[in-house]
Parts: sequence; structure tokens; C-alpha cells
Amino acid sequence: MPSHATNLRLKLPATCFLLEILTILLFAVFVRYDREASASQWHQELNHRNTSHLDNDFYFRYPSFQDVHTMIFIGFGFLMTFLKRYGFGSVAFNFLIAAFAIQWSTLVQGFFHSFHNGKIHVGIESMINADFCSGAVLISFGAVLGKTSPVQLLLMTLFEVTLFGLNEYILLSLLGAKDAGGSMTIHAFGAYFGLMVSRVLYRPQLDKSRQREGSVYHSDVFAMIGTLFLWIFWPSFNSAITTHGDDQHRTVVNTYFSLAASTLATFGMSSLINGEGKLDMVHIQNAALAGGVVVGTAGEMMLTPFGAMTAGFLAGLISTLGFKFLTPLLDSKLKIQDTCGVHNLHGMPGVLGALLGVLVSALATHDVYGDGMYDVFPFIAQGSRTASYQAITQLCALFVTLGFAVIGGSIAGAILKMNFLASPPDTQCFEDQIYWEVPEAHHDGYGHMSDVAPDDPDKSTDA
Amino acid sequence: MPSHATNLRLKLPATCFLLEILTILLFAVFVRYDREASASQWHQELNHRNTSHLDNDFYFRYPSFQDVHTMIFIGFGFLMTFLKRYGFGSVAFNFLIAAFAIQWSTLVQGFFHSFHNGKIHVGIESMINADFCSGAVLISFGAVLGKTSPVQLLLMTLFEVTLFGLNEYILLSLLGAKDAGGSMTIHAFGAYFGLMVSRVLYRPQLDKSRQREGSVYHSDVFAMIGTLFLWIFWPSFNSAITTHGDDQHRTVVNTYFSLAASTLATFGMSSLINGEGKLDMVHIQNAALAGGVVVGTAGEMMLTPFGAMTAGFLAGLISTLGFKFLTPLLDSKLKIQDTCGVHNLHGMPGVLGALLGVLVSALATHDVYGDGMYDVFPFIAQGSRTASYQAITQLCALFVTLGFAVIGGSIAGAILKMNFLASPPDTQCFEDQIYWEVPEAHHDGYGHMSDVAPDDPDKSTDA
Amino acid sequence: MPSHATNLRLKLPATCFLLEILTILLFAVFVRYDREASASQWHQELNHRNTSHLDNDFYFRYPSFQDVHTMIFIGFGFLMTFLKRYGFGSVAFNFLIAAFAIQWSTLVQGFFHSFHNGKIHVGIESMINADFCSGAVLISFGAVLGKTSPVQLLLMTLFEVTLFGLNEYILLSLLGAKDAGGSMTIHAFGAYFGLMVSRVLYRPQLDKSRQREGSVYHSDVFAMIGTLFLWIFWPSFNSAITTHGDDQHRTVVNTYFSLAASTLATFGMSSLINGEGKLDMVHIQNAALAGGVVVGTAGEMMLTPFGAMTAGFLAGLISTLGFKFLTPLLDSKLKIQDTCGVHNLHGMPGVLGALLGVLVSALATHDVYGDGMYDVFPFIAQGSRTASYQAITQLCALFVTLGFAVIGGSIAGAILKMNFLASPPDTQCFEDQIYWEVPEAHHDGYGHMSDVAPDDPDKSTDA
Repeated sequence: MPSHATNLRLKLPATCFLLEILTILLFAVFVRYDREASASQWHQELNHRNTSHLDNDFYFRYPSFQDVHTMIFIGFGFLMTFLKRYGFGSVAFNFLIAAFAIQWSTLVQGFFHSFHNGKIHVGIESMINADFCSGAVLISFGAVLGKTSPVQLLLMTLFEVTLFGLNEYILLSLLGAKDAGGSMTIHAFGAYFGLMVSRVLYRPQLDKSRQREGSVYHSDVFAMIGTLFLWIFWPSFNSAITTHGDDQHRTVVNTYFSLAASTLATFGMSSLINGEGKLDMVHIQNAALAGGVVVGTAGEMMLTPFGAMTAGFLAGLISTLGFKFLTPLLDSKLKIQDTCGVHNLHGMPGVLGALLGVLVSALATHDVYGDGMYDVFPFIAQGSRTASYQAITQLCALFVTLGFAVIGGSIAGAILKMNFLASPPDTQCFEDQIYWEVPEAHHDGYGHMSDVAPDDPDKSTDA
Repeated sequence: MPSHATNLRLKLPATCFLLEILTILLFAVFVRYDREASASQWHQELNHRNTSHLDNDFYFRYPSFQDVHTMIFIGFGFLMTFLKRYGFGSVAFNFLIAAFAIQWSTLVQGFFHSFHNGKIHVGIESMINADFCSGAVLISFGAVLGKTSPVQLLLMTLFEVTLFGLNEYILLSLLGAKDAGGSMTIHAFGAYFGLMVSRVLYRPQLDKSRQREGSVYHSDVFAMIGTLFLWIFWPSFNSAITTHGDDQHRTVVNTYFSLAASTLATFGMSSLINGEGKLDMVHIQNAALAGGVVVGTAGEMMLTPFGAMTAGFLAGLISTLGFKFLTPLLDSKLKIQDTCGVHNLHGMPGVLGALLGVLVSALATHDVYGDGMYDVFPFIAQGSRTASYQAITQLCALFVTLGFAVIGGSIAGAILKMNFLASPPDTQCFEDQIYWEVPEAHHDGYGHMSDVAPDDPDKSTDA
Repeated sequence: MPSHATNLRLKLPATCFLLEILTILLFAVFVRYDREASASQWHQELNHRNTSHLDNDFYFRYPSFQDVHTMIFIGFGFLMTFLKRYGFGSVAFNFLIAAFAIQWSTLVQGFFHSFHNGKIHVGIESMINADFCSGAVLISFGAVLGKTSPVQLLLMTLFEVTLFGLNEYILLSLLGAKDAGGSMTIHAFGAYFGLMVSRVLYRPQLDKSRQREGSVYHSDVFAMIGTLFLWIFWPSFNSAITTHGDDQHRTVVNTYFSLAASTLATFGMSSLINGEGKLDMVHIQNAALAGGVVVGTAGEMMLTPFGAMTAGFLAGLISTLGFKFLTPLLDSKLKIQDTCGVHNLHGMPGVLGALLGVLVSALATHDVYGDGMYDVFPFIAQGSRTASYQAITQLCALFVTLGFAVIGGSIAGAILKMNFLASPPDTQCFEDQIYWEVPEAHHDGYGHMSDVAPDDPDKSTDA
């Protein structure tokens, strides 16, 4: 039974309804179909130009969008179901956060990127970008998983999406940095933002809930649904908004091979660092994905398959080592409790991916890119930048991102600390029962025995 | 051990084999590849017209088809696995029904829509339409889930698919109504058909099985697989057969935003109507999808993102309220036992979607649609109808659909009542053991203790 | 606790790291982007020819590739999670094998098929082919599931991929046989290779682990995730590398109907051969897919929907009968222990599919194919072969494949028998604990009671 402090009855409905109604009103005023989704405008183009339906960007990007959409709602959602008693919260709060984030980021990104004549124009590209932004928020969610209420999470989303839009605007529009797959804007930003939130919300007494901060057998299998959908669709993620043609094609190839290499690195390292040589599902579920993160910036560049695999291999090694050695240190030394280990999967590989982008930018030559230079590095193609200048820009973009993430996450953490946001007590973290109607278990459920509430040990048949 | 009455050994094989062989024979006589799937015809087009492979409708529609296919087999299938002891029946009877429905509806829809020179022509568009039809049957399945044998379900499919084809023909071809995403033809039809079947098959003694009509913890997580795949691919569902270009693009945008809004409405309302403010997985699993249903008719129209979100928000609210207050009333007052609450997810939102279609049709102007009017409202574009007339047509279509569903469902229910169809007894509803080899559980299965048959309470370690 | 012999600590890391570093080095020397993924080359084409981005093969094949990718990693992976205590090994070793196979086969297939000027060119088509090759290895994995260490599996992959490439080269390039969906190259090859490995690794004492060679309730539901994703995306598998236009379109239609027919056949037969008329999840999970295998060769041909359904229906019947009657015989008479029954799902239906290809090739006429003959049967179109000659070629291809599979599998089995490869003892087959950190179960996991190690019966609360 939730105490008054954690009872959502007024707080969650008020938050959901207010945010949604506000969003709808802003959409009414500002949001319109873009020219490719508007009946009159698209048909005007068809009539007056040498255009066919096939030129509608929808056909270039919708399959990739659907893969990204799957990653956001199924991938991230199920990846976090590994916790034994937080399956509902993992998959459903992920759902809630993402559903709000895609709406709010449509507004925020629209103001920054596609605000024309007082209107925001939406279509397949804005949808992909909105999904991308929600990805960053879900990464932050991973750091605070099980320790925050849905009210806190919605407020974090409101704030983080706004800051994401600003950071992305500075990187892509003002600095002219490249980051199509979001090593910086999505992964590094989301990870360090979430880690700072977790730092501010540090719980010295979290040990009271530690017995729930692990998996059971089937929850680890559920988590693999998330892992594998993220893994298979990551090539679509990195290529979803790159330029048509060779750019999308090449990004897919690079991501495919980088992920494959990081998977073998993860299996090898997981066994190596275990006392008995046994594999650890936490590593497989997470570190095998580092290959996708690390080519988020450089994936569209002429990285070569060899380069992609080398990067993926290193990312898999580092990520696995991070889970083993760094996560405990972050907790004990820096007071950062990182439930899902986002520092290992998104933080370090994101920074590594940004640095890879610096390197590959610096190596760009007209010989290698030909006229494709206009798509990948327009400023170099136009002669207004050298490759070295582009590389320095990429490096600046990383520092800007880290700055926004660290400062933004600290502020967000302070906001979330307000004590009327239904945060769970230290004894009830990683526990669905506090926010959910959890089915009472009966001995007649297949694969199932009686269920025993953790605060009611007398009922245990195990006693 | 199944009694003689529920033993499937002769009944199910006979039904499966007879239906399949009949279908194959009808295919032999009537079904041919359409011109885009036929080697000689497509190459003739390539040679004699200004056509390229890219003009093959396959490339416009196959990605959407695959999303729809996923919704039918994974989405509907897993959505129904929430029952604690009916996971096999849910996902596998869903599979059986859909596999037969897509074949039978290819014939029925073919006769009504693409019967040329005595032949039915099949290709990507007929496949999408066949999948759509199976969706309606699976909605009806949700109403009778756990209370019917696979033999009954196959007969229901045979009858319902046929009636679906007739209703669809009247709506789309005779009346000239628009319903690309099937608010009427699929959702309202499937829901009210199923509710009438359930009404005729009313079981006053169902209380004997009520202890199984709930979920266990992991079955609720399985159900979220269904929910989320339905949610993410619903934009593909509504746009799969709309016209190329802006129509498909716009339908996707509308559905995406409608669903996002209905999700926040559902979370807020679920918490509001719970005594302790707790969220209920039944609502999240179902009502969050109402946003997809409600724009099934109007999604291809110039609904505006604002309109889509408003509709989705209302649908989420109403659907959640329906689960809480209406489902119990339907059972106690109207003797309609609705296992999955299809009235709340498909019935009411379907009717609401039809009415939204009436409203948006009435508002159609040449100014807003331009030449795109030919694709969305061809009769208005040609000048043979006014917008008001189209709106009235849409309203008639709703009533025709409800009439077909209610009368058809009553007849189907009467047919299914025949007592040699292996219907489960009142004490064995929502129970896999009656039709399935259920693995005996051992204490050596991870995440698993010994399993106790419900009719064998002595074995319970819980005693 | 793993004994020294099964401890992976040095063996698995050494194998993973050596194979991956070797692969990366070979990629550095040999692998380059193909012309459609290369910035300079693609833009050169755009500039000098009448080419648009839409002509990039990426847009014709990427959606199909993603479906195939889903089948390989989710489909095969979850299909094998049916074992009660081998969920981690099933889904994660599947992941490991496939991640290595796609890299190694890129090299092997590259040498055989796209080695130009000393370089292998990679892009969307090579990725599809690499995924296909990994499918064959995963089929073999099914035969030895639970009885092999990951070190053995990686060695098997190394060897099998190489042989796969050679066999495929002989069939497609030297003989000029057709096999777009791989009835021969993938299914028959993978199945008989795996069965021979299993034969060589025969364990007379496997009874010591038989109590784990079954499912629990939820593991059967997990397996249905695999089944259904394989089922729904099989049309993409068979059509992924067929020619653009009518060929891809027609292959999808044929596969769709074949699978639907095999599903009804499976349900009917499963009930018929059960003493009590009950359905068996093993059949539904597997035999319903036989319809996809059986049209792997003939799916791109003018098979007609009727032909596809007839073939699917027969394949479903035979496959189900195989699970019931043949698998036990293989074990007792031929000493072939086939964990997943790959002989029933891939072996027999693969051979049947090859024979169907012989038949449909023999019936090819210019009247039916028109100019489409150039795509399906180029040698017949050019007049250098008759239809009968093509049919004989197809038959030869089957025998070549079976020869390679049987001999190759025997050699591979002999290699895998080496006693330092960490093979599990007879008492620890089908058991995750030997290679994995398995979460200790607590009574506070929802849907979960205490977990009891099989070798520690004293802890059982069941006692």
C-alpha cells in the first residue's frame, strides 16, 4: 500500500493531463503537416515539377523510422526488464516517457530546426528526430531506473528534451558538427545527464533495496528481447537521417560490422574477467551494443569496414570492463548509482564515438569522398573549412555536449529532489508494487508458485 | 484429461484439413498472380510502357505490409497472453485463426473486389487486405478468449470473414465511404460481432473459472510485447492501403501523434480511477492503443496533428473508463462476457473513429486538399458529391457496419452453440490443459517451482 | 561450479579474440565498400549516368534485409529458448554464432562471389548473403543445442561457413542452379551438416540430462516469439535476393500462402497424432514453419499460389509426423540426437523444396514466363539450356549439397570431439549453469519461488 507521499492518485493524472493538454494547444497553434504530407502542397509539386510519388521522403525513410521506433519502445523498454520486480515499471514507464518525449521534442526541435513563418512542419524526418530525442531521455532513465516516480520522470523528460534540442541546435546548426547517429547528441548527452541526475538524487541507504536490484532467470530472457532488437535495428538508427543514397547505405554497412565485432569482444571479455570463466548476462545484454554507439558519429563517413570493426571491438572491450570495474567505483567513490550501467553502454562508447568522429573527419580527403563530400562534410566540399578545422569542430561539439549534460543533469536532479514528486522510499526502490497493481500470484498459474510480498516474510513457503 | 466432449482428436483435424483442402481447390480454380507479380505480365509492362521496377506497388507497400503482418501475428497474439493459464491458447489459436483467415479472405475479398474474367488476382495489396480482415476476426476472438474451442474459432472465422467481405464491399464499393484504417470495417465490426457471439454463448456459471481469468507477473510482461508492437506499427496499419505519396505520409503522422496522446491519457486516467492511485496493466496494455483505432477512418484526411491528438486523448480516456466501469456492467446487465475488453479498445473507439470521419469529411474543402482531393474524396473532387453528402455517407456506413456485426454475431453465436464443437466446460475456461500438452513443471526449471494442477490441490506445497 | 575441463576462462576469450582480430586484419586487407556504398563511386555514377538515389539497391533490399536480420537474431534465438534451463545459452550462443558467422561469411562468400582486383566489395547484398549463411549455421546449432560449448560452436561456425561458401559457389556459379531462398544451400545443408555433427558427438549417456530436455510453461511462450517472427518474415527471407520487380513480389506471395497452408496442416496433424487429441507446442513452434522452407527454391518461380499452398500443406504434415515418429527413431536407430528436431523442420522440407524446384523448373515455358524468363532462368531464356536440363541441374545441386553436408558435418564433428574444447559432461547438458552466471532465485521475485539447483535436492521446498 503506498503511503501518502508516494500515492500517485492526484499527482500523476495532473501531470499527464496538464502536459498533454498544453502540448495539444501548442500543436494547435504551431504545428502543420510538412509539404510532403500535405494534400494540397504535395499535389502542387506533383503538378508543377518533375516529381513523382517516389520522391516523397516517406519512401526513403519510413522503413528506417519503423526500426528506430521499435528500438525506442521495444528495445529500450525490454532491455530494462531485467530487474526481478520492476518489469512493469521498466517497460511501461519507458513507454510513458517516450510517448511524451516524442510530442514535446517535436515542438522543441521544431522551434530550433524547422520554424518557418511561425509554423513547425512535421513529417517523417521530424518523427525520426523526435524518436532520437526520446532515446536520449530513455538513456537517462536507465541511470535512475527503479529510484524515481513517473511524476519525476515526466518532469525530467520535459526538461531534458528542451535541453537536448538546444544542444543539438548548437552542434548541428551553429557549429556545423556532424553526428547523424548521435554518439554525442544522444548517447553521451543522455548518459551524462542521467548520471548527474542520479548523483544529485544519491541514496546512501539504497542498500535497503539491493536485494531487488538483480534479475531472475526469465527477466534476463525478457531483457534479451530488448538487446536483440536494439542490436539488429541499430544500422537503421545510425542511417535514418543521413543523406539519401551512398550515405544511408554506408552507414548501415559500418554499423553492421561494428556491432558484430563488439559482440565477440563482449563474449570474450565477459568470460575473461569472471573468476570461473562464466559469462554474465549483464555484459551480453549491454556491452554487445557498444559497437552501435561508437559509430554514431563516424558511421556516415568513409570509416571503412575495417575501421568500424576496430572501433566496435574496442568499444565492446571497454564497455564490458566498465560494467565489472567502473560501475562499483562510480557508486562507492562518486556517489553515482547507475542502475543500468548507462555509463558503460552509452557514456564511454559515446565519448569514444565522438573522438572517432574527430579522427575520421581529420582524415577526410577529396580523393576518398569525391562529390560525396557535399553530403558528408558540406563545409569542406564548399572549401570554407579544412578537414582539420572540421575535426576541431567535432571536438568542440563533444565538450559542449558534456557541458550541457553535466550542468543540465545537475539542475534536473535538483528539480526532481522536490519532495512532493512521489519518489519511492529507500526501502521500496526497484519495486513495482509501489506504483502498480501487481497480480496476486496463485499456485495455479503455470510456471508459478505463490508469491510473497517482501515485507511479509511469514507467508513464505521457503521458511 | 479432456472428456469425450472436448476431445479434439477427430474434430480439429477434420476441420483443419477440410477447410485447407477446400481453400486450396478454390485457389487452384480462381486465384492467379496479379500483373505486378506475374513474370510475363510485369515484363510486358516494362517493355511497352515508361515503367521501371520501382513502380511495382511492392516497393510502396511491402514495408507497411510487414508491419501489419507483425501486428496480426505478434501484436494480437501476445496482447492476449496476459491470462495466467492460457498463454498457449492465446498466442497459438491467434496464429491458427489468422493463418486461415488470410487465405479465406483472399477468396472472399477477391470475389467482391478483384474478380476479373473469372479470376482473383493476388499481390501485395490483396495480402494487406487479407491481413486486415484477419484483424477483425482476432478482435472478435478477444471477446470469447478462453471460452471457445479451436473448432468453434475456425467456424467463426469462416463465417465472419465472409460477412466482413460483404460489409466492406457495401461500404467501400457501393456506398463510397472511406475507411482506410478500418475504424468501422475492422474495429467496430470485429468488436460488436465478437460481443454478440459472446452474448449468445453467455455462461452463467463462468464464476467456476474466474480464478484463472487474471494475469501473473510474467504473463503481463508477455502481453506488453503485443501492446508495444501494435502501438509502434499502427501508423503502418492505417496507412498501408492509402494512396501513394502525401496520403501514406499524412496517415502515418496522424496515427503517430494520436497514439502518443492516448498513452498519456491512459496513464493519467488509470491512476485517477484507482483507489490507491496505482496504475493497472490492463489499461496500459489496451487503452493506450485506442489512439490508433480512433483515427482509422480520418487518418488519411487533413485531420491536422492537433485533431489527431485531441481524438487520441479522448479515446484513451474513454477506453480506460470503459475497462473500469463498463466491462463489469456489460457482464452483469447485458450478459456479455468480454474477456479482453474489446468493447473498450475496439468497440467504442471504433465508433468514435467513425464519427470523427463524419466530422472531418463534412469539413473537407478544395482549399485544404487541392488536387489531393482526388485521392481522399474522389466523389467530392469529381463534383458528384458535396462534403456534407460524403459525411452522411460515412454515417450510414457506420450503421450498416453495426447492423452487420450485431446480426452476424448473433447468427455466428447460434452456430457455435452446437454441442459437438468441443466447447470447454464452465469449470475449464481460460485453461490450456484442456486442449494442450502442458509441460509438467519440475523444481529444476529456473524461475519455477513445482506446478500444481488446479484439480489436484493435494499436491500443492502451498497447502 | 564448472570443472577445469568446462571452464571457459581462457578458452573462450582466446577463441573470440583470435577469431575477431584475424577477421579484422583480413577485412583491412581485402574488404571495401561496394560502388553503391562508396561516396566517390556512387556520386560518380550519379553525375555521369541517368541514375538517381532511388536506383541504389539499398532501397530495394534494406527492408527485406532487416526482416532477415530479425529472423536470424530474434527468430532463431528465441525459437530455441523452449528448453527450461537453457534460455541463456539458446538466445546468447545464437547471438555469438551469428555475429561471427556474418563476418566470416562476408570474407568467404566475398572470395567466391565478389572478388574483383583483389578486393571484396560489401554492401546490402553481401549483408543479406552473410545473414543467410549464418542461418545455415544456426540450423546446425539446433541439432547440437545444449550439448556443445561456445568454443566448439565457434569452431563449427568457422568450418561450416567456409564449406557453405564453397557449396553455394558450386551450386549457383558453377552449376547455374537456382536457390534464392535456400531450400538446398541453407536448410538442407545446415540440417544434414548439424545432424552429422550430432552423430559424431553421439552421447550414449545423455539420459543423465534428459530431465532438462523439455520446456516449462513460460519457456514455451518465449519460443513462440521466435516461431512467429520467423513465420511473418519468411516471405522477406525467400525474396531478399531475388531480382527486382515481379520476382520479389511473386516470391513473397508464394511464401505467404505456403506458410498459411502449412500452419493448418500442423494444427490438424498435431491433434490427430496425440492420444488425447491435444495439441503439442513443439509441433506448432516448428512444423508450422515448414511451409517457408519448402518454397525456398521454387518461391521465385511461377509456382502459382495453388502450388505454393499444396507444397506448404504437405510440408506441414510431413514435418509434424517427423517430430512424432522420426526424431525418436533417429536417436535410437541412427544415434543422432537432434535437440530441436532440425531434421523435421529444415532437413525433410529442404529436400522436398529442392525436389519442388526440380519439378517447377521442368515445367518452365516461355509462354508462362515471357521476358521474365531472363530473371528466373537466364540459361533457358538465352537458349543455352532446356527446361529439362535446368531441372536435372537442380537435382544435381541437391545431391552435391547433401554430399557436402554429410562429409563436412562428419569432419566438423571429429574436430569438435577434441577434448580441450570445454564440452559439457553428460550430466550437465541442456544446463545454463555450467557456462553462465545464473541469478540465484529469491522468494521475492514476482512469479517466482526459490530456485533449486538440480544437484542439490535437499534445498527443495517440494520435498
